[in-house]
Amino acid sequence: MVQYSTDRLDASFAALSDATRRGVLEQLGRSDASISELADRFHMTLTGMKKHVGVLEQAGLVRTEKVGRVRTCKLGVSRLAGETAWIEEYRRLWAARFDALDEIVEELKQKEMSDERRQGK
Amino acid sequence: MVQYSTDRLDASFAALSDATRRGVLEQLGRSDASISELADRFHMTLTGMKKHVGVLEQAGLVRTEKVGRVRTCKLGVSRLAGETAWIEEYRRLWAARFDALDEIVEELKQKEMSDERRQGK
Repeated sequence: MVQYSTDRLDASFAALSDATRRGVLEQLGRSDASISELADRFHMTLTGMKKHVGVLEQAGLVRTEKVGRVRTCKLGVSRLAGETAWIEEYRRLWAARFDALDEIVEELKQKEMSDERRQGK
Repeated sequence: MVQYSTDRLDASFAALSDATRRGVLEQLGRSDASISELADRFHMTLTGMKKHVGVLEQAGLVRTEKVGRVRTCKLGVSRLAGETAWIEEYRRLWAARFDALDEIVEELKQKEMSDERRQGK
């Protein structure tokens, strides 16, 4: 498999394992937003939203800027390149494993048919 | 965004957020293995490995079959299709946001250059 920083993959996949956090990323993909706008949008307390944003920030998926009293959230530098590479490699392995199974099933079928013919069924 | 089962995405991304669990999937992508083989390979107790396999099984990434006293682990039915689709859509949004930023920066540069020309610098 392609080698990427283990900690980075751990942090990103953990950050993506929550529907609200994925929703925040989708929202920030459309436009920047303050923590309180995000809290409103996802029907959550400010404290709850701050925690989610903190997890996303740790994973490099979000960065925040404080101007005056408002903290604005934007998409971070991570474009999930390592995560995409890992999943693509997994899908390649998965397909190869299942293709191999298909071939075995096909061989067994052929063998059975030729056995039947030999027995004059 | 494409809609996939939220619980399924939560479970898969959580399952992928651990290096040992990703390692188990890579291993099963090469060949099936018993729980004790996996425990040996990842220098872990049987109980620890059973927990990891349980998490992967819940997410549909692994299935197990018990024959006699041996429980064999194989890749599950999930080929991470929903997870791939979510990440691809995110990457599309991400690229669009950063392209938009590039355009703004480019416009600002052009404006600055024409201001400088006007001022005869």
